[in-house]
Amino acid sequence: MAGSSYGNIFSVTTWGESHGKAVGVTVDGCPAGLEIDEAYIQSFLDRRKPGQSRFTTQRSESDTVRILSGVFEGRTTGCPISMMVENTSQISKDYSDIADKYRPGHADYTFDKKYGFRDYRGGGRSSGRETIGRVAAGAVARKVLEQLGVNIYAYVTQIGDISIVRENFDKAEILKNSLCMPDKDAAERASLYLEELIKEKDSSGALVECVAEHVPAGIGEPVFDKLDARLAYAVMSIGAVKGVEIGDGFGVVTSRGSQNNDEFTEGFRKKTNHSGGVLGGISDGSDIVLRAAFKPTPSIYRKQRTINDKGEELDIEIKGRHDPIIAPRAVVVVESMVAVTILDMILEGTHSRLDNILKLV
Amino acid sequence: MAGSSYGNIFSVTTWGESHGKAVGVTVDGCPAGLEIDEAYIQSFLDRRKPGQSRFTTQRSESDTVRILSGVFEGRTTGCPISMMVENTSQISKDYSDIADKYRPGHADYTFDKKYGFRDYRGGGRSSGRETIGRVAAGAVARKVLEQLGVNIYAYVTQIGDISIVRENFDKAEILKNSLCMPDKDAAERASLYLEELIKEKDSSGALVECVAEHVPAGIGEPVFDKLDARLAYAVMSIGAVKGVEIGDGFGVVTSRGSQNNDEFTEGFRKKTNHSGGVLGGISDGSDIVLRAAFKPTPSIYRKQRTINDKGEELDIEIKGRHDPIIAPRAVVVVESMVAVTILDMILEGTHSRLDNILKLV
Amino acid sequence: MAGSSYGNIFSVTTWGESHGKAVGVTVDGCPAGLEIDEAYIQSFLDRRKPGQSRFTTQRSESDTVRILSGVFEGRTTGCPISMMVENTSQISKDYSDIADKYRPGHADYTFDKKYGFRDYRGGGRSSGRETIGRVAAGAVARKVLEQLGVNIYAYVTQIGDISIVRENFDKAEILKNSLCMPDKDAAERASLYLEELIKEKDSSGALVECVAEHVPAGIGEPVFDKLDARLAYAVMSIGAVKGVEIGDGFGVVTSRGSQNNDEFTEGFRKKTNHSGGVLGGISDGSDIVLRAAFKPTPSIYRKQRTINDKGEELDIEIKGRHDPIIAPRAVVVVESMVAVTILDMILEGTHSRLDNILKLV
Amino acid sequence: MAGSSYGNIFSVTTWGESHGKAVGVTVDGCPAGLEIDEAYIQSFLDRRKPGQSRFTTQRSESDTVRILSGVFEGRTTGCPISMMVENTSQISKDYSDIADKYRPGHADYTFDKKYGFRDYRGGGRSSGRETIGRVAAGAVARKVLEQLGVNIYAYVTQIGDISIVRENFDKAEILKNSLCMPDKDAAERASLYLEELIKEKDSSGALVECVAEHVPAGIGEPVFDKLDARLAYAVMSIGAVKGVEIGDGFGVVTSRGSQNNDEFTEGFRKKTNHSGGVLGGISDGSDIVLRAAFKPTPSIYRKQRTINDKGEELDIEIKGRHDPIIAPRAVVVVESMVAVTILDMILEGTHSRLDNILKLV
Repeated sequence: MAGSSYGNIFSVTTWGESHGKAVGVTVDGCPAGLEIDEAYIQSFLDRRKPGQSRFTTQRSESDTVRILSGVFEGRTTGCPISMMVENTSQISKDYSDIADKYRPGHADYTFDKKYGFRDYRGGGRSSGRETIGRVAAGAVARKVLEQLGVNIYAYVTQIGDISIVRENFDKAEILKNSLCMPDKDAAERASLYLEELIKEKDSSGALVECVAEHVPAGIGEPVFDKLDARLAYAVMSIGAVKGVEIGDGFGVVTSRGSQNNDEFTEGFRKKTNHSGGVLGGISDGSDIVLRAAFKPTPSIYRKQRTINDKGEELDIEIKGRHDPIIAPRAVVVVESMVAVTILDMILEGTHSRLDNILKLV
Repeated sequence: MAGSSYGNIFSVTTWGESHGKAVGVTVDGCPAGLEIDEAYIQSFLDRRKPGQSRFTTQRSESDTVRILSGVFEGRTTGCPISMMVENTSQISKDYSDIADKYRPGHADYTFDKKYGFRDYRGGGRSSGRETIGRVAAGAVARKVLEQLGVNIYAYVTQIGDISIVRENFDKAEILKNSLCMPDKDAAERASLYLEELIKEKDSSGALVECVAEHVPAGIGEPVFDKLDARLAYAVMSIGAVKGVEIGDGFGVVTSRGSQNNDEFTEGFRKKTNHSGGVLGGISDGSDIVLRAAFKPTPSIYRKQRTINDKGEELDIEIKGRHDPIIAPRAVVVVESMVAVTILDMILEGTHSRLDNILKLV
Repeated sequence: MAGSSYGNIFSVTTWGESHGKAVGVTVDGCPAGLEIDEAYIQSFLDRRKPGQSRFTTQRSESDTVRILSGVFEGRTTGCPISMMVENTSQISKDYSDIADKYRPGHADYTFDKKYGFRDYRGGGRSSGRETIGRVAAGAVARKVLEQLGVNIYAYVTQIGDISIVRENFDKAEILKNSLCMPDKDAAERASLYLEELIKEKDSSGALVECVAEHVPAGIGEPVFDKLDARLAYAVMSIGAVKGVEIGDGFGVVTSRGSQNNDEFTEGFRKKTNHSGGVLGGISDGSDIVLRAAFKPTPSIYRKQRTINDKGEELDIEIKGRHDPIIAPRAVVVVESMVAVTILDMILEGTHSRLDNILKLV
Repeated sequence: MAGSSYGNIFSVTTWGESHGKAVGVTVDGCPAGLEIDEAYIQSFLDRRKPGQSRFTTQRSESDTVRILSGVFEGRTTGCPISMMVENTSQISKDYSDIADKYRPGHADYTFDKKYGFRDYRGGGRSSGRETIGRVAAGAVARKVLEQLGVNIYAYVTQIGDISIVRENFDKAEILKNSLCMPDKDAAERASLYLEELIKEKDSSGALVECVAEHVPAGIGEPVFDKLDARLAYAVMSIGAVKGVEIGDGFGVVTSRGSQNNDEFTEGFRKKTNHSGGVLGGISDGSDIVLRAAFKPTPSIYRKQRTINDKGEELDIEIKGRHDPIIAPRAVVVVESMVAVTILDMILEGTHSRLDNILKLV
């Protein structure tokens, strides 16, 4: 209820603050018999690790994950998988001078209103470090999805006004350039733009797209727990996301039924995929395609006006170590939330038909 | 789990199919002592009732609601409120010829894949009639929110290429014109566009905006159950919605931190509201502003290519009674889902501080 | 959260008050493809119907169930099954003189403390009529369980000091005598005891035993959602139940490990069943055996001392129509709650192994 | 869903196995502003720590708890509280010879059936060490309950045939003698009995009683989530518990309405407490009194017959370090589950009245 858990069957509970002792996650409901180890999970965590380019915070964390439970002799046991990453590079003094100030674009004021006070060190619970737990859980989900043939990948398609060119789409580029753009040329232009912003002590928004391939048709629930509704929930729960769309998304506003309807053809396939792989909340066998809009990093180095907790206006200058753009490190977080959601709904779907149940019991 | 319930504390469970005996909803968790009656609920249902303009289905339903439980001597008792609307105008023969065909843009194929078969009459469970339960539940939520000073209203801002002009925004117009646009002139132009589409046996998408005023600051949970995440979930769960955004939404992609950050000023207010009323997943006291993209009605009268359940290609011509645009009747559905979500999270928020709990117990 | 729903996958939500318009239930999560009709459900409702013997209330209700959704052409669709029974024999005036008095052994005072006021007519939400929804839902669960080979039956083993003799156990007797005792002789002696109590304007407690046969081994979760924990929850949630035990139950207090341990033998069977079919919270393939203690009907016709809502002491004489014993009509309620629980946990269990999931997807 | 979480608002998720790296718990939903530290939590863990008397396993564990998140400057922040105890004294070789054998009275066979294999070291997830997480979470709950004036304590009332004498009830004795009996003389007699059983390589069952004082009237939900139903669920989820009763419990079977009804008197009090503090599932302001039956420790040192995972009959001799009685160390576990349940339902109850909500928002 307090909202640190996500997923009904494959259930993920994260914990930890930016400057606490550690951050972590418990995954309950992972099926037994999955081969998994720390190295596999680490490979995903390394993609969101700070300090890997000049566009990410210089906070130096190895973010080494430890599996504390739920894995025996290299396989999941069906019992909760607890994973933990210790915080090692907290520099909390950086934050003491903003303890009573409300940073624009941050959750400082809203935390105070909700809880009466807050752990003000480095964003506390609202820190991006909370997503370590999501990525570790997402890695477990992906290992299951691999067995089912489902493949998920995301990438940055736009930074400021600079978009990828669809004709130049190069999947291999995603993991090569520090901006996770599948278009080398666009990534280079975006880099120049970000260099400029760094000089101006400013930050940029970005657009992330995520594709889930080979999701079987028939996944999702028809009313509140539509697959797209759950994906929107999952992805919007990532800090800094301000919009989520699926398939043609906001483009449908200017579309017509005759354009937007995907006609079915042989092989139970659709000729087009305006739907983004979901019809009536249930997967239709096409690629699931969604996009998320990330706002510019709110922590910028230029002076801003704000108030303190007494309501007095004053200037604020934010120190600490911050990224001029959030999206590239969030790409793996989007993938993780999509993976957890799709797996969770696949597991929920195993009950939808009596004949399936009779097969198992 | 099967996804017909929404909300953790104020919990809504809908049931019913387009051509079944009735549709309805059970609201569990409504606080005791709320004055409410059928007339109040009916006033919201009347806003989504069919047959009110030439842009909505001519299916004739009075959609009269009956409260079956949970209200005693004019007040809620704290026990589940069961509400029901009988279906009276089902013409099921219209659908028998499409029983084995997959309508493009519909959930026919996906239902068959999920359940093995489907109630093919009029969309079955995927029918817009399911939203009757949402609106009835939303009415109850709104009656509570009224007591808390929260006010929610939605409207259509764009149909095809025709957008409202913000300078001409006229709230009173929303309930006056059949397209629910707060700009009389835009509504008239959009009407002409829709007339054209009807002639062409086509349909249009649209954009709906929703505002929640006077939501107290401090509502929402900081991680997975962010207020905006839950709103995205709720609104995306409405059939035909393909995108949800909050505040500046997808506009943040091209924005900069220095523009997008809302500076705080005296009175614990923000100078701007790029955030759409939510910071770090928690309400900041500004208006909550969100938008939803509705796809064009998939049921169009022109001939389309599709397949049947054996995978054979064929032509399909959809009969029945359908709207050339979904959004106007969905406006009250959006309001309802937003109301249920905000109330649910207000109720969840009563536990966030020990001092509050000590006051009550 | 408000507690009118039970079950995670196979989820049951009841609604309705003793003297409202109707009582009912929504079952969400029933697998698609189950053949079911109203007659089947009615057969279970008839077992708890009032007015069938001199030991049950003379309130005359036919308790005719209607299925309003979720069944199409004789089979469940996978969508919510809404079922309703109209109240036809409310005589609310009987209750008006106790509107402000707290009946001993009833929930009058506690409802007032919780909600500020209450629907005082006939027990309101706390009425035994709420269990109509449970029995209707239980009937659906049992129809699924039948397909899985699981068989559930309950009976009264003790009324006051009169117990059945195990050697005389006659299953066929359960449905024959009005006390649901599987021992004709004991039933006759118990009848005499109850006749005596009726003369004395008093009521009796009773013990109900329930057996679930052929539950496959491996059902249940090892920590909080142990099968026995969930059964205790389900059965204790039936009004008037004050104790639940499984297997040897409270008898284990005086037992020793060497007696209480069930040794395993060939065929993966146990030589004895002290465990009652559950080891470590998971079914072991033996019969699930549990017992529930029902308190005497609190509504007795003799004068009692109590207070009113101002705290003033006074005499109370309860009118209305009441059973001198609760258990016989509750037998089918116990069966229903056990059925819903076991089915729900069977459905949950379909996710426990990766190899099972690979079979389905 | 996989059952490692308990509680709706105050939500507890445990993880860890007997011979894994650590065991722990995440508490989500604890109100912000509660003063708490590791020493307070440790004081409860020390009560279930092994090696404190000759009646508990000689496994030597300090069971030192670390708080990893959710507490800032000595107060809870409202964010998840992660607590961990490292396992330091695992001697896994003791278990290797039983890896393929099914110990009578244990969950070995049922785990294999559910998951396909198991972590066989020391009971794995079914080990009593899982309760460390429950006790740590219970400590947090109790710290909140202290603020609300609620006090919870449990004790052993019977071991084998040896019961406490109610006239000799001495609360101070509970923490003094190693059997947690509130009657020094009974504890001495029980000790002799246990010495005898140790010699006979056997073990004993026991009865634990728990009292919750000063629970305000009005807590609990009237249908499925009755306070007593949730308590039965919580307590039955403790390994080895085979029965739970509240108030007069199974004694009601032989009681009459005129005896069992508690008459109300001045001060909104009851003259007696046969109900055990709960009427209609809602607390009535009297002491909550419940009892749980603990089975004898299934690990006994004498030779037993059983089968292996191929179904072959053979002898088994269980080594390792085991308690001849479970109940004394489980007393604090019972208290913890009762505390978590009562707090959770108090928090749920804050929504039951509109006037309360208006006070907070």
